[in-house]
Amino acid sequence: MYTKRRLAAVLLAFTAFLAGATAVSAQTADPSGAATLAADPSAPVNFVWVLIAGFLVFFMQAGFALVEAGFARAKNTVNILTKNVMDFCIGGLAFWAFGFAVMFGGSRIAPGTELGNAILGHSGFFLSGAAYDVTTAAIWFFQMCFAAAAATIVSGAMAERTKITAYMAYSFIVSAVIYPVFGHWVWGGGWLSTLPFGAGARDFAGSGVVHSLGGLIALTGAMMVGPRTGKYGRDGKARLIAGHNMTFVALGTMVLFVGWFGFNPGSTLAATDLRISVIAVNTFLAGVAGAVVAMYAILTRTGKADLGMACNGCLAGLVAVTASCAYVAPWAAVVIGGVAGLLMIASVGFVENRLKIDDPVGAISVHGANGLWGLLAVGIFADGTYGGVAGLVVGNGAQIVAQLITMATVIVWALGTGFALFAGIKTTMGLRASATEEREGLDLTEHGIEAYPAEAALG
Amino acid sequence: MYTKRRLAAVLLAFTAFLAGATAVSAQTADPSGAATLAADPSAPVNFVWVLIAGFLVFFMQAGFALVEAGFARAKNTVNILTKNVMDFCIGGLAFWAFGFAVMFGGSRIAPGTELGNAILGHSGFFLSGAAYDVTTAAIWFFQMCFAAAAATIVSGAMAERTKITAYMAYSFIVSAVIYPVFGHWVWGGGWLSTLPFGAGARDFAGSGVVHSLGGLIALTGAMMVGPRTGKYGRDGKARLIAGHNMTFVALGTMVLFVGWFGFNPGSTLAATDLRISVIAVNTFLAGVAGAVVAMYAILTRTGKADLGMACNGCLAGLVAVTASCAYVAPWAAVVIGGVAGLLMIASVGFVENRLKIDDPVGAISVHGANGLWGLLAVGIFADGTYGGVAGLVVGNGAQIVAQLITMATVIVWALGTGFALFAGIKTTMGLRASATEEREGLDLTEHGIEAYPAEAALG
Amino acid sequence: MYTKRRLAAVLLAFTAFLAGATAVSAQTADPSGAATLAADPSAPVNFVWVLIAGFLVFFMQAGFALVEAGFARAKNTVNILTKNVMDFCIGGLAFWAFGFAVMFGGSRIAPGTELGNAILGHSGFFLSGAAYDVTTAAIWFFQMCFAAAAATIVSGAMAERTKITAYMAYSFIVSAVIYPVFGHWVWGGGWLSTLPFGAGARDFAGSGVVHSLGGLIALTGAMMVGPRTGKYGRDGKARLIAGHNMTFVALGTMVLFVGWFGFNPGSTLAATDLRISVIAVNTFLAGVAGAVVAMYAILTRTGKADLGMACNGCLAGLVAVTASCAYVAPWAAVVIGGVAGLLMIASVGFVENRLKIDDPVGAISVHGANGLWGLLAVGIFADGTYGGVAGLVVGNGAQIVAQLITMATVIVWALGTGFALFAGIKTTMGLRASATEEREGLDLTEHGIEAYPAEAALG
Repeated sequence: MYTKRRLAAVLLAFTAFLAGATAVSAQTADPSGAATLAADPSAPVNFVWVLIAGFLVFFMQAGFALVEAGFARAKNTVNILTKNVMDFCIGGLAFWAFGFAVMFGGSRIAPGTELGNAILGHSGFFLSGAAYDVTTAAIWFFQMCFAAAAATIVSGAMAERTKITAYMAYSFIVSAVIYPVFGHWVWGGGWLSTLPFGAGARDFAGSGVVHSLGGLIALTGAMMVGPRTGKYGRDGKARLIAGHNMTFVALGTMVLFVGWFGFNPGSTLAATDLRISVIAVNTFLAGVAGAVVAMYAILTRTGKADLGMACNGCLAGLVAVTASCAYVAPWAAVVIGGVAGLLMIASVGFVENRLKIDDPVGAISVHGANGLWGLLAVGIFADGTYGGVAGLVVGNGAQIVAQLITMATVIVWALGTGFALFAGIKTTMGLRASATEEREGLDLTEHGIEAYPAEAALG
Repeated sequence: MYTKRRLAAVLLAFTAFLAGATAVSAQTADPSGAATLAADPSAPVNFVWVLIAGFLVFFMQAGFALVEAGFARAKNTVNILTKNVMDFCIGGLAFWAFGFAVMFGGSRIAPGTELGNAILGHSGFFLSGAAYDVTTAAIWFFQMCFAAAAATIVSGAMAERTKITAYMAYSFIVSAVIYPVFGHWVWGGGWLSTLPFGAGARDFAGSGVVHSLGGLIALTGAMMVGPRTGKYGRDGKARLIAGHNMTFVALGTMVLFVGWFGFNPGSTLAATDLRISVIAVNTFLAGVAGAVVAMYAILTRTGKADLGMACNGCLAGLVAVTASCAYVAPWAAVVIGGVAGLLMIASVGFVENRLKIDDPVGAISVHGANGLWGLLAVGIFADGTYGGVAGLVVGNGAQIVAQLITMATVIVWALGTGFALFAGIKTTMGLRASATEEREGLDLTEHGIEAYPAEAALG
Repeated sequence: MYTKRRLAAVLLAFTAFLAGATAVSAQTADPSGAATLAADPSAPVNFVWVLIAGFLVFFMQAGFALVEAGFARAKNTVNILTKNVMDFCIGGLAFWAFGFAVMFGGSRIAPGTELGNAILGHSGFFLSGAAYDVTTAAIWFFQMCFAAAAATIVSGAMAERTKITAYMAYSFIVSAVIYPVFGHWVWGGGWLSTLPFGAGARDFAGSGVVHSLGGLIALTGAMMVGPRTGKYGRDGKARLIAGHNMTFVALGTMVLFVGWFGFNPGSTLAATDLRISVIAVNTFLAGVAGAVVAMYAILTRTGKADLGMACNGCLAGLVAVTASCAYVAPWAAVVIGGVAGLLMIASVGFVENRLKIDDPVGAISVHGANGLWGLLAVGIFADGTYGGVAGLVVGNGAQIVAQLITMATVIVWALGTGFALFAGIKTTMGLRASATEEREGLDLTEHGIEAYPAEAALG
């Protein structure tokens, strides 16, 4: 109790210090927007674009919740839903207080983001001082939705056996520190963005920053928490644990697909950049190619039209094209998405059977493996028609070097911080629900309610 | 039968009169939009903004339906869904015929809205005459979605025991008269908007106009219809009646959250007002603060991570910031939302245990109590950076007087008209389903179908 | 096996030929958008409008999936979901490769669409060559979503007894050929659009092109595959086969309604056309009028408030107003929608009891019958305020001639190609699942999984 109070006092002092630091850096903020409008007649259409794209990205939280709930058993449904609601709530506050300042400090992307270096940003805390500005608010909103997406990828891989309090603590740290630091390196003006190869590291909408980071942290979490009871038999072989609602899985996939149209095209941060239409087309084509290839690959192999694999193939294609969606031609998006569908299938088998990691929703394969493939694809397929990014298909071999360095960096950073974070949680508050809780279901034991109580079904 | 025909004749005559009245007031309408475009080059981006915001608000109907269905038992699911579908259908027609003219007549906000006074508007009926105009249509569409939202709040509080025909009659009256009259006073140029305190009553996106009105009418409805059989034991103590699907509750909450990004930022009615980004940020922060505070408050008290309370805390925060979202800084939105989370918990207990009113979804607390808190918060936290609205935090004490008068007015108006309306319905067509119907479930008795028939589940 | 390889070789050669043909026609493409922006300052707001409208139309896929899944039995849920996911995936690729070029070749609507005649287009294949352009991409994206909508209408009418492989083959053909050819005639500059009556055939957003085409092909498919086992008794009378989840039906209807706000207003393809607000209003009014009329018609007849009929009435109203939404006044939209509600009820009875066709979701009536009514309504209610289209209400009798010709054409084309297509599939790969599969449910037999496995529900 004493410790908690002291902690609170330290946090308060730290907060006051940050607010002070921000105030010192205060530029001309425009909280009403009048000056911004006067200076830039295109501001309204760009604001509309960024905000609505952000709303679509925010909607992806519902997609993640549905997919993860559908792949879980009924007895753990409230638990996985609670995680999906609370991670963007806690993560949103963390990104408001700290994350945004760490990620975009020094980028000078908008008022209040002046201070930072190649490793870390440190201005824009609490959107206070100079960051109380309409442009900063628009960018903050869009980026907050991305931070939330990165955080929520992990919950699926750790579903059905992770304590809710542990997961909420994880949400805070990943949104306040782990995601923003790597984000700063690629998008906040940090060292990866200025690599002397090609155009520097390029990850247009976050195959690497969001998806491979989230997917690789998911790998560490799923490994640290261990497989669900009954997932592996005495012979060490993986067994199928079916989810409780495939309608939710399909609906969630469609919601995520819709949200991706905010995620990728919105990442121009401007509607005056008309490439948005090509980005939308590429996003669509990669997603459907991933679904079609995964579906026919499974159908050929097993004779069954596996909906779960089609959905994950679709999501894999979307993840994979996220880095390159602005830089490639439509035919390349089809190829990138198609490869992603196959890579997802291979990765799911590898994670489950070789690594012996239990990932109930396939998050490691969909987001982790294909996020890395997406980073690589920029170096291969970028055709030089946009942003000065050119890859192997147009005879340029430098870009792929920057991409490979970024891939290596995200692997090291995500696995390193992921293991450290979950080890810390494990030794302090505990990571895994008890065997009894797991058997009875986390809903009754941790949440005190069931998702579908029998008495409500019967009347 | 004779009475019905006479009623029809009277309605027809009245309709003809209204159409005539509108025709008389005809200004220059622009149904093609060519003249409007020529006069204002910013019209396209503002139209896009208002329409898409309206689409998002319309989507909230799905959110309400899901939350209310999830909190109800399976046997009453078709009933609550039907109410949520029919109230915007009936309410939409009512708002087209009458409501809009009552609410915005005299505001001169667009062609065809010229006639009205401080108490009532009376032009724009049926969107005919001068109201057949592109600007009027855009505003009508956005405002219709708001009227539908106000109407649908009530269904949740009266769930599981109210007759469908009674509810459909209610929907018409509230959208044609009760909501528009109060709306006229605050948003249509009526007497509250011109109060001589601060900037006059200010309710940016409707904490009061939509939510406290809807929530307080819900209180009268829930009181008049009485608690569900079995809600209160012989000892007078409330018992828990669990809902049938927490996935729908969580999904519905997320859909409502997405819709709120149309509700609040869209209320600028213009994208050239760049404050929209700050409004989106404030909306988000208040919602997540409400969820986090409610979640940890419950977790501390009971040791259970109650998803239903987190969802309602989130909605409470959103309701509370709706009046002030344009006038406050992000830190204030966090405070407003956090307080809302606590207020919701207190109010739920008060309504259930002190007032002995059975509100299956917590609508009275989420919308009623927090709608009032939202009105008050404008007078406290408005920081003077937008619209000339300044509250206590910047040393201005006048605004809060206007807010308190508005709060008192909505309480009197909503409770007065609500009791009158439901008393009228009760004595004419009847308000409550029979005990037999309630026991068997309203779905089979009133709708002739079940939401989840056993034979469809088994094959 | 040998045949498959030969087929692949032919396809490859054909593809190469098409890519070459497109390259030959190459105009000045603008893949980065810089030149397009310089030439048209309104491009950003128009791109934002078209793209976001497209996202909304894409979201309709989720609505279709939910409605169809809800009306199906649990044992066929994975099957219907798979169809709804795969049809836009396969159809999207087909429209990318062939459909768009067939539909818009010769329209010169954007770079890369130069070649075509009154019957067929033939440029823009694979979005390659001159079609790799930001304007072309925007239009392609929006139109692809329409093609997907047309394709997916059929799955509901054929639900619960059609083989998944047959359906996937159907999806390719309809999106590559059948839909684009008719679409070319009306929207791609083909012979119907230039009929010498009134303004030529006018179908603003596709009552005919999308809905009546889809609904009439659905009729051929449902007839060819035959009714579900048990649908008709020995006496030939139809029996009710209840769906498994009315919440999905209601939610799906709401999602479709939201999507329609992209479908209809987005069909201006420009936000600088301010008629978009009137279109949104008309779309809304027709939908709610359809729901209200259908609901009270059923309530009067049976005493039961039938949610399924209200939902289908709503969709019928939306379908019916789709052709005329831009050309009529709000009062006419109410009339069109109200008539649609009644027409849907009459058609459902006619299809089920007279034609003896088993249509589990009512797609033939909602889309087919009301799509035709929608085409007709243009000739009656167009008031001449927009696009020079005037009908009977303003004393112009020529337009209705063009509409009647279009109605006759779509009937002949859809029934002709539909019967040919399904006959072809039936004789080659087979159309209908076996009696055993149908009894056990398509989910286990064709997909190897259940939507709601008992072991996942119990723990």
